[in-house]
Amino acid sequence: MTQFDLTSYLRQSRRQVEAALDRYLPLQYPEKLYESMRYSLLGGGKRLRPILCLTTNQMCDGTSAMALPTACALEMVHTMSLIHDDLPAMDDDEYRRGQKTNHIVFGEDMAILAGDALLAYAFQLIAEQTVGVSPERVVRVLGLLGKAASGAGLVGGQVVDLASEGQDIALETLEYIHIHKTGALLEVSVISGAILAGAAEAEIERLTRYSRCIGLAFQIKDDLLDITGTQQELGKTAGKDLRDHKATYPSLLGYEGACKRAEQLFEEAVAELAIFGKRAEPLTALAEYIVRRSH
Amino acid sequence: MTQFDLTSYLRQSRRQVEAALDRYLPLQYPEKLYESMRYSLLGGGKRLRPILCLTTNQMCDGTSAMALPTACALEMVHTMSLIHDDLPAMDDDEYRRGQKTNHIVFGEDMAILAGDALLAYAFQLIAEQTVGVSPERVVRVLGLLGKAASGAGLVGGQVVDLASEGQDIALETLEYIHIHKTGALLEVSVISGAILAGAAEAEIERLTRYSRCIGLAFQIKDDLLDITGTQQELGKTAGKDLRDHKATYPSLLGYEGACKRAEQLFEEAVAELAIFGKRAEPLTALAEYIVRRSH
Repeated sequence: MTQFDLTSYLRQSRRQVEAALDRYLPLQYPEKLYESMRYSLLGGGKRLRPILCLTTNQMCDGTSAMALPTACALEMVHTMSLIHDDLPAMDDDEYRRGQKTNHIVFGEDMAILAGDALLAYAFQLIAEQTVGVSPERVVRVLGLLGKAASGAGLVGGQVVDLASEGQDIALETLEYIHIHKTGALLEVSVISGAILAGAAEAEIERLTRYSRCIGLAFQIKDDLLDITGTQQELGKTAGKDLRDHKATYPSLLGYEGACKRAEQLFEEAVAELAIFGKRAEPLTALAEYIVRRSH
Repeated sequence: MTQFDLTSYLRQSRRQVEAALDRYLPLQYPEKLYESMRYSLLGGGKRLRPILCLTTNQMCDGTSAMALPTACALEMVHTMSLIHDDLPAMDDDEYRRGQKTNHIVFGEDMAILAGDALLAYAFQLIAEQTVGVSPERVVRVLGLLGKAASGAGLVGGQVVDLASEGQDIALETLEYIHIHKTGALLEVSVISGAILAGAAEAEIERLTRYSRCIGLAFQIKDDLLDITGTQQELGKTAGKDLRDHKATYPSLLGYEGACKRAEQLFEEAVAELAIFGKRAEPLTALAEYIVRRSH
């Protein structure tokens, strides 16, 4: 599709993000809390949200000083949602990213508190550490991140997801779940990068549509991988959706239908990037990665 | 001490705060989540944090349009910490503000998610709804709120509190717990009101010291009330600290010693308000209320 070397781009970007996460969240008193936060935050993962933010920011002529705190904050909010979703009172998962889940290692109380602290710190980090961006834009990003992390975003998606377990649900409900549970944070990952760089509103609108397409494609691919992947590849319990009788895209559209829908969304996403010309190569490659990845 | 009619001031302020909380968080889809959030947020309470914010803002010549979103956000963060602290994995409490705790009514999963959503929405609310304040000041308030709600604030205090249960702890550790668990959010309640109104740095410094004194006095009074109060007066299980062998100010300083320390802190708090003259009457009365309240 593209000559852009995504593998080395991802490796380099991940290294940058992980160094920044380590720097922004050093071990400190009370150590057990920060060990728990760092365990989940630094324990691997694709770093897709921070990379989307940094990549979009760069495409819109931003600098990493503008976007790095927000990029890391996005990963903190994402990590918070994983820690809390894995709790016994929710999905009750023992493995995540190939490691024992946070509450298995640190206890339920610490896992709840580590999630809370990561969520609050994400906002502190953006407010205190963003450099070279007008405060208007910082406030806009903080508002969008708050929305994506609250009832209008990932928490709303998780609530409907929990309520739908073991139920027959319509495609409409499934899309609500994913647009909120996964899509909202992916969307703010992309557009925060553009806002921080001072992109024009027309560009932000294109990128919003791009992010919605890749958000849905990401979830469809996740559902497909749950069927075809192994626990080792996924770093989490495989085949769990089927076992839990969860509604998924393949269960509603069939395996082939879901693959086709993901490809269609990829094409739509790439079409939105046309106005950016050659500068959109990395975002195009990221969209391709999202629908074609093997874990 | 003062001729200011605190009772009617508190009644009026509470009414203003509760109307705004209801307006900022209407019932919406998914209803069960918002019912759970509204149950704890609108279920009574002293509304001390929003009232401190509004009162300070007014003293510094602010308007309620400037401070009301932040005032309500402070109550949302406070409510989140109560919902999560009451969970079985933490303090395992059945009653709060005279009502069944959130997880008893809505289940543990919903209580965790309602807390998460309140925390994230607090930041969204300030970022989106604050009117008539320069974005620099809004960013500063968002950063301070993030800090007060994270590991450097109330989560850090709760972690050390949980680790200290049933242990002999030094006065130093007890002060760490309270400065973080209660003090940090009370401090940002006061100074956010001043920042939003555009107060001078020298005024903000005075108010920071005022807020630290009343924060500690508030906690000492809470400990004293746990000994002398009834469940009906407190709206939560009384005598719990003693039963749980929790370190408290009375257990470390003696009952009389703790009373004396609270009075001393009140005097120190009031002294910091001298530069504001007669305009400080409401904040003086609030300090008095904090050390002399009966619940």
